[in-house]
Amino acid sequence: MIHLESDYNNGAHPAVLRHFLDTNDERSQSYGDDRYSEHARQLIREACQAPNAQVYFLAGGTQTNATIIDCVLQPFEGVVCCDTAHINVHEAGAVEFTGHKVIALPHHDGKLRNSDLRQWLQGFFADETAEHMVRPGMVYITFPTELGTLYTADELRALHATCREYEIPLYVDGARLAYGLAASMDIDLPLLSRLADIFYIGGTKCGTLCGEAVVFPNGNAPSHMLSRIKRHGALLAKSRVVGVQFEALFSPAPDGEPLYLSLGRSAVSLAMHLRHLFVDGLGYKPYIDSPTNQQFYVIPNDDLPRLRQFIGFEPWAPVDATHTACRFVTSWATTSDEVDSLERSLLS
Amino acid sequence: MIHLESDYNNGAHPAVLRHFLDTNDERSQSYGDDRYSEHARQLIREACQAPNAQVYFLAGGTQTNATIIDCVLQPFEGVVCCDTAHINVHEAGAVEFTGHKVIALPHHDGKLRNSDLRQWLQGFFADETAEHMVRPGMVYITFPTELGTLYTADELRALHATCREYEIPLYVDGARLAYGLAASMDIDLPLLSRLADIFYIGGTKCGTLCGEAVVFPNGNAPSHMLSRIKRHGALLAKSRVVGVQFEALFSPAPDGEPLYLSLGRSAVSLAMHLRHLFVDGLGYKPYIDSPTNQQFYVIPNDDLPRLRQFIGFEPWAPVDATHTACRFVTSWATTSDEVDSLERSLLS
Amino acid sequence: MIHLESDYNNGAHPAVLRHFLDTNDERSQSYGDDRYSEHARQLIREACQAPNAQVYFLAGGTQTNATIIDCVLQPFEGVVCCDTAHINVHEAGAVEFTGHKVIALPHHDGKLRNSDLRQWLQGFFADETAEHMVRPGMVYITFPTELGTLYTADELRALHATCREYEIPLYVDGARLAYGLAASMDIDLPLLSRLADIFYIGGTKCGTLCGEAVVFPNGNAPSHMLSRIKRHGALLAKSRVVGVQFEALFSPAPDGEPLYLSLGRSAVSLAMHLRHLFVDGLGYKPYIDSPTNQQFYVIPNDDLPRLRQFIGFEPWAPVDATHTACRFVTSWATTSDEVDSLERSLLS
Amino acid sequence: MIHLESDYNNGAHPAVLRHFLDTNDERSQSYGDDRYSEHARQLIREACQAPNAQVYFLAGGTQTNATIIDCVLQPFEGVVCCDTAHINVHEAGAVEFTGHKVIALPHHDGKLRNSDLRQWLQGFFADETAEHMVRPGMVYITFPTELGTLYTADELRALHATCREYEIPLYVDGARLAYGLAASMDIDLPLLSRLADIFYIGGTKCGTLCGEAVVFPNGNAPSHMLSRIKRHGALLAKSRVVGVQFEALFSPAPDGEPLYLSLGRSAVSLAMHLRHLFVDGLGYKPYIDSPTNQQFYVIPNDDLPRLRQFIGFEPWAPVDATHTACRFVTSWATTSDEVDSLERSLLS
Repeated sequence: MIHLESDYNNGAHPAVLRHFLDTNDERSQSYGDDRYSEHARQLIREACQAPNAQVYFLAGGTQTNATIIDCVLQPFEGVVCCDTAHINVHEAGAVEFTGHKVIALPHHDGKLRNSDLRQWLQGFFADETAEHMVRPGMVYITFPTELGTLYTADELRALHATCREYEIPLYVDGARLAYGLAASMDIDLPLLSRLADIFYIGGTKCGTLCGEAVVFPNGNAPSHMLSRIKRHGALLAKSRVVGVQFEALFSPAPDGEPLYLSLGRSAVSLAMHLRHLFVDGLGYKPYIDSPTNQQFYVIPNDDLPRLRQFIGFEPWAPVDATHTACRFVTSWATTSDEVDSLERSLLS
Repeated sequence: MIHLESDYNNGAHPAVLRHFLDTNDERSQSYGDDRYSEHARQLIREACQAPNAQVYFLAGGTQTNATIIDCVLQPFEGVVCCDTAHINVHEAGAVEFTGHKVIALPHHDGKLRNSDLRQWLQGFFADETAEHMVRPGMVYITFPTELGTLYTADELRALHATCREYEIPLYVDGARLAYGLAASMDIDLPLLSRLADIFYIGGTKCGTLCGEAVVFPNGNAPSHMLSRIKRHGALLAKSRVVGVQFEALFSPAPDGEPLYLSLGRSAVSLAMHLRHLFVDGLGYKPYIDSPTNQQFYVIPNDDLPRLRQFIGFEPWAPVDATHTACRFVTSWATTSDEVDSLERSLLS
Repeated sequence: MIHLESDYNNGAHPAVLRHFLDTNDERSQSYGDDRYSEHARQLIREACQAPNAQVYFLAGGTQTNATIIDCVLQPFEGVVCCDTAHINVHEAGAVEFTGHKVIALPHHDGKLRNSDLRQWLQGFFADETAEHMVRPGMVYITFPTELGTLYTADELRALHATCREYEIPLYVDGARLAYGLAASMDIDLPLLSRLADIFYIGGTKCGTLCGEAVVFPNGNAPSHMLSRIKRHGALLAKSRVVGVQFEALFSPAPDGEPLYLSLGRSAVSLAMHLRHLFVDGLGYKPYIDSPTNQQFYVIPNDDLPRLRQFIGFEPWAPVDATHTACRFVTSWATTSDEVDSLERSLLS
Repeated sequence: MIHLESDYNNGAHPAVLRHFLDTNDERSQSYGDDRYSEHARQLIREACQAPNAQVYFLAGGTQTNATIIDCVLQPFEGVVCCDTAHINVHEAGAVEFTGHKVIALPHHDGKLRNSDLRQWLQGFFADETAEHMVRPGMVYITFPTELGTLYTADELRALHATCREYEIPLYVDGARLAYGLAASMDIDLPLLSRLADIFYIGGTKCGTLCGEAVVFPNGNAPSHMLSRIKRHGALLAKSRVVGVQFEALFSPAPDGEPLYLSLGRSAVSLAMHLRHLFVDGLGYKPYIDSPTNQQFYVIPNDDLPRLRQFIGFEPWAPVDATHTACRFVTSWATTSDEVDSLERSLLS
């Protein structure tokens, strides 16, 4: 049995847990001033080639989105995204709770299209009643998206250029960033740091027990971030709980690369193995063409019982009377043995 | 050198870390449905002798206060506390961020006095302009208080009776509850569960890396708590991160008692040792008469350098030109050896 | 020159101003307890045939929407409307400012279609992740809509039935209600009071200097409305300022009918005259088929200068390279003489 | 019978109503761009000798306070005032509704004492935990105060200097400003405009039906005020409703002085007549020594029935078993004849 329901159902990557053990008897400062957080920040700056970056550690993804969006927006501004965006659908209104509108444009394969964004912005600023409307104060995208898809470097550059032109910051939600970076042909952390004004490096879905790292690559975070974060209930007293974990994930492995990147590659490589099995081996059609750790296939309903014998997974959406789109998610915790064994079972 | 700056500067209690190791390879549900959280809830119900209690796990103290207070209050209500209350002073306005007023009455040794509360409530409900004022919708106290002091069972009963009479829930912030229960002569978890309408069992300052357990002993939490908590950014996807820790703290030790209680007793016992040393040994006067793990003494400024050779601690407030009140905090991580060694150094 | 830019550019209906004069030397209570407000409430109850209705007077439309929506919604709920809804577009995010999401479905001629609403509600309640989403807590429609169109009684009944089935209140924004009632073939105040759970009778665009009357026809307004309204900054100390105006508008004229209804009919009658002139006289095509006081026509750009000689009006949207959709708004202040004179000028 | 219950129980000053009549048939722009508002702004600038002042018109006092305070504060800031301040007591938590803490210091005769403010600010900025606390972002005072008292020019200068030193704006709530200016020995509008960073000129209690004029004398209002005000539900579509009234109140009378100032003087002069009658004629003791239109006296309970035969007034607070402090409020609508007649009745 292989479990592909989601990427947050395991514990922590063993290196993370080991680092908790190694550091447990040390005393440290609190509220972000602990040495682990300090060092993790430095490691992240290096991985991003962004020496002036400011880095803040928060506990979870919805918290991070709501806190950062509210901190960056002016009171009369809203955040523009596509309609499948996590903040628009699955955060229980956490952004609106902070008083800001989520302005949703149509998605294309889970992505915000630059031409749609430009057209909307042009329309907004040409509208004589614009002062009666919510002003766009941020553009939000996810990388990878909620549907597992990725922006290309050119698409990201185009969004970046539009945001520059309209002087609106571009914020990238990286809840699954490790998997996105592993799958992307042309985007790495240094490029992301040049094209995004703010992004977060997801921990919860990428090997930690909790925690996300928010990066302002240009060091232009709003003033009084500690007070702002605390006001949102998002400041951890014992901040080492996240700092230790990101120190583990961003410490260079023997090959010189942060663990964060290699655990992403492992999951994506196994997702591609799975894709080969499903498409070439079993003849299933992809529901969405995802290069990352979230895979979606159109499964004949008749096949579901057999699949369920070997895989834990989630139905995503009905396709027609006899087919269901299903989601299969690999993670840092998925092993080659599990996928090999699945292949043998399904193809036998 | 003994470190008595605070009770959240160490890692986690070894039993907590061990439980992370033991459970790490297991897969679990998320958003509070994981088996560790389920079991921890059951253990807490048993320790509280409150079989119908609802228990919610959140990441930190300020988050817990702001979320729970906002969930329980009607929009037009505020929370009554004493002026030294953590929510009134040191939470960066997190309660007001949710739209509610903190109504502060004068404190007495860090405590809200029942007679003050009654008088204020009588005044409020007798006021013909009351509808133009913020209505009291909750009474908030801390146990132990920010000054280390404790309510007696009689004091708590009196507050409980007043709250009953005015139909206002009583909420007890237990950020340091382990130390309060250990020091109290007459309040234990079952009694607290009968006298408080809501309370939280603090983890961050009592042995976990993060996490607080909110208890509604009578099972009358507001509807849709998952949505409410998520909207505040306070819902952990990988909820086991807190569940595992509370499962460790509330699993019965060989003596049948949850670890949570014994680690509190250890810290308080060492605080009393410290008190003996400071008062009887060194002749210092208590600044506040605290029976818990936070100790406050009036230290001659001339003695400060010598103390600093042996102890990490924090100045609290100037007393006069030649004396400073200082705070010394023991915790679950403080050892007898450290205190014995300190005693030898200071008395030699 | 006839001014058809909007329906809030004149002063007050003469009867309103006269009533200010007649009552000016009388003393009255405040905060809604004045005799004018009391009497206006009674007159509105009678006009609505809703003897248990609760009526609240507020100053303006955006304030009314934001205040009432926030008062009625639970914290974790949002309001469902169509995408052209005033609350979604032109209220500067006032609803989101109160912490609630505006959930926008596609419009059809400015209207929310019952089948769309049902489908969306079915989808929401069938979604296993619904607790992570904003729950629908109110359905908002406008009557007439922002595009001048009207729901039929059958359409309103269908929305009402859906709302009943899902136990979600239906709220009708009646900023231009006088014109909607005048133009509707089958909806009057008593029927509206049976089909809507909450609605407001617009004053600002229908003859007053300011003020809107919110009606809960079934008398089930939330508790502590005075405190709730004041908290939103929406409670007028000298409440007579609105009460006097609605007393004037709802006092029966010699024909036994409230002035509010007849001033609406006058504006709609002149709008139909205008329509005859534009369509039959000048051969313009309606841009939207509106039976109310807001009229929209496709005007050849070459005709615009000539029209501007005789009419004040606003361009609404470009149609193609040579045509512009324009809006022409009659009001209680528009006179037959003005329209007759326009007709003569344009047809000469 | 003379009515001295409050200063918002009459209609509007006759000149205000007359101006409504005179302008009623004119068409005007909306949302603050109408000619009456424009002209009223200009008249206010002149009266304040503040040629760069920005002026915004809102509907009521609580709305004005909550909107302006929220617009000026940074999200992590609160507003400092004394504990009797209207925003702290009688606005149903409208400031907290916008997410900000009201930080209350003890009052002295209803006033915030500069030495208290300085000491508190020094303490705040010396506190090492300040970032965990709500930062002071505005100082709020009322002129006259809720107890009818007045700051002297020297007191106001001192507060101004403290605010300058700490770079915190000083905001003056002038709900009853006409009466304060009339009674003050040394503060007039131009001086107020130099010493306050923001203030509002109250209309509702000083002769209008509704409306307050917010003044930023130095022209440094936050950006996008229209959007900000609308988001608070405080933007009037038919803005002339307030503009017309302030145009009437600030148009120079034959003596060259705005009506606003002379109607204040009339009320204060009659309040002083009343004081003479109560103190010298009837031997009552002032409860608070107020030079403005709100007068407070200690009345023997035995005298209350006789007073009630001739005066409408409100009990304020019990003094002892046999005495009650009562409030008597004159206004622009109180006449010499009424006070003369009262004097004859009471002294006969």
